[in-house]
Amino acid sequence: MTLEDFSDYARRRVDDYLTQNLNQYAPAAHLQDAMMYSLFNGGKRVRPMLTYAAASLFGTAGELTDASAAALESIHAYSLIHDDLPAMDDDDLRRGKPTCHIQYDEATAILAGDALQTFAFELLSNKKHQNNGIQLQLIQELVYASGRHGMVTGQMIDLANVGKTIDVKALEQMHQHKTGALIRASVRMGAISTGGHSEQDLAALDAYSAAIGLAFQVQDDIIDITSDTATLGKTQFSDEDANKPTYPKLLGLEGAQTLAQNLHKQAIVAISPFGEKAKPLVELANYIIDRNH
Amino acid sequence: MTLEDFSDYARRRVDDYLTQNLNQYAPAAHLQDAMMYSLFNGGKRVRPMLTYAAASLFGTAGELTDASAAALESIHAYSLIHDDLPAMDDDDLRRGKPTCHIQYDEATAILAGDALQTFAFELLSNKKHQNNGIQLQLIQELVYASGRHGMVTGQMIDLANVGKTIDVKALEQMHQHKTGALIRASVRMGAISTGGHSEQDLAALDAYSAAIGLAFQVQDDIIDITSDTATLGKTQFSDEDANKPTYPKLLGLEGAQTLAQNLHKQAIVAISPFGEKAKPLVELANYIIDRNH
Repeated sequence: MTLEDFSDYARRRVDDYLTQNLNQYAPAAHLQDAMMYSLFNGGKRVRPMLTYAAASLFGTAGELTDASAAALESIHAYSLIHDDLPAMDDDDLRRGKPTCHIQYDEATAILAGDALQTFAFELLSNKKHQNNGIQLQLIQELVYASGRHGMVTGQMIDLANVGKTIDVKALEQMHQHKTGALIRASVRMGAISTGGHSEQDLAALDAYSAAIGLAFQVQDDIIDITSDTATLGKTQFSDEDANKPTYPKLLGLEGAQTLAQNLHKQAIVAISPFGEKAKPLVELANYIIDRNH
Repeated sequence: MTLEDFSDYARRRVDDYLTQNLNQYAPAAHLQDAMMYSLFNGGKRVRPMLTYAAASLFGTAGELTDASAAALESIHAYSLIHDDLPAMDDDDLRRGKPTCHIQYDEATAILAGDALQTFAFELLSNKKHQNNGIQLQLIQELVYASGRHGMVTGQMIDLANVGKTIDVKALEQMHQHKTGALIRASVRMGAISTGGHSEQDLAALDAYSAAIGLAFQVQDDIIDITSDTATLGKTQFSDEDANKPTYPKLLGLEGAQTLAQNLHKQAIVAISPFGEKAKPLVELANYIIDRNH
């Protein structure tokens, strides 16, 4: 399967699962619309791709894999809605479309984000899965990655860093929380959803995730200064403008590119024990470094 | 045990449990502070009282009861933070103290609310409980009550109602979602946390919760026009001013008072099969009608 095929496969599965489960209830149609708008705004589905790729190492992706991929995407969507709010990054555009609070209004955007967070736990705790042990493990992983131990703290650190001079270590700590934790969870939850992994497998996958998670951010910073607004779907130099610390600022453009390449190598080495089965994870690592938007 | 003793008991247990579990991690001290500030701002702990009172019908309150009470209070605290935001109800004062976004800032308030929601699921999914079946049931209850099936939808309907003329049925539907669902879950989760309830027990408790949940709102509306700002800890007539529909507006003050009394009676009848054991629940129903703030 090429990366494009794999991407289509992951997108179709997660989109179907999200639509099926979200459509079951609509007492406030406006809220449901805003949730759907943000879930289906052309996101790359990187996290679901990681989840399905990790699951494929240990068996066949089942409904708990779908629930994991969908839950991760719901958390990701909620975080983007809240990060884009005027009180946070104040972004009007996301992937070339109006952000949720522009398309609807601020109150709706806050509530849609809130409801998408709960929806993630709804998907994982659903009675139909009938595997309490694995379900609870998946919920623990998502809690750890998305709340005060992970993503929310990362956004808090990010906001506190605006206008400040910080070093590479502090920048890495911010990214580990803000985006790294959820990427790590995407891979781990894929493995856990199959029930076929060992602790050693998870350790290898964690090493892979740490490397590609950071590489993703370094590449984001590089793209922000080398790509144009049309390709990006958001305003070019938006991070530069916001006076946020970036890798090219701290290491120079060339230094940042070298770092991204080294992280890519680390990722490939970490999953080499899985052999041929790890091909989707290898291609995802390649994609993260090669992409220009 | 008098209601005051029971209130002290519930408050001590839930406050200890919240403090123990929240203090374990603080990578962004500012975020942790804002979460604590909102969790410990003098709330009446009505939901935890309901949880412990329901648990006492079926056995001894255990750690899963504590986790339920604490999770419910975390969800309640997050909802108040977000509801108070400028884009929502725009309140500066809550229980006589600055609201979270006034004490800190808007971005911190949004993130503290987000993290408190995740924290609720952290408490319930914690490995230490070692009862996967009950844990998952509790998570399902909380999801259903707090997300798109419950509280968030209620707040969405509430915002949509501002300035509109709606009837008593539509007002009831809003309250059932906005506050009723979480009150129902508080009672149900108390029962479920002990593992000793039957389906019939839950049905009786649901009838009790539906009645006191609505009575609580009717009484809130009555207090809003009969009490003064010092007693309320928020601006008097704040709901009147916001041009929101209320029971006294739709039924007159006397009509609203009669409704509250009738709901109180329904609640007492619903739990009469539990006999003497239901005394805390009876006293809570009395308190809801008798309170003046």
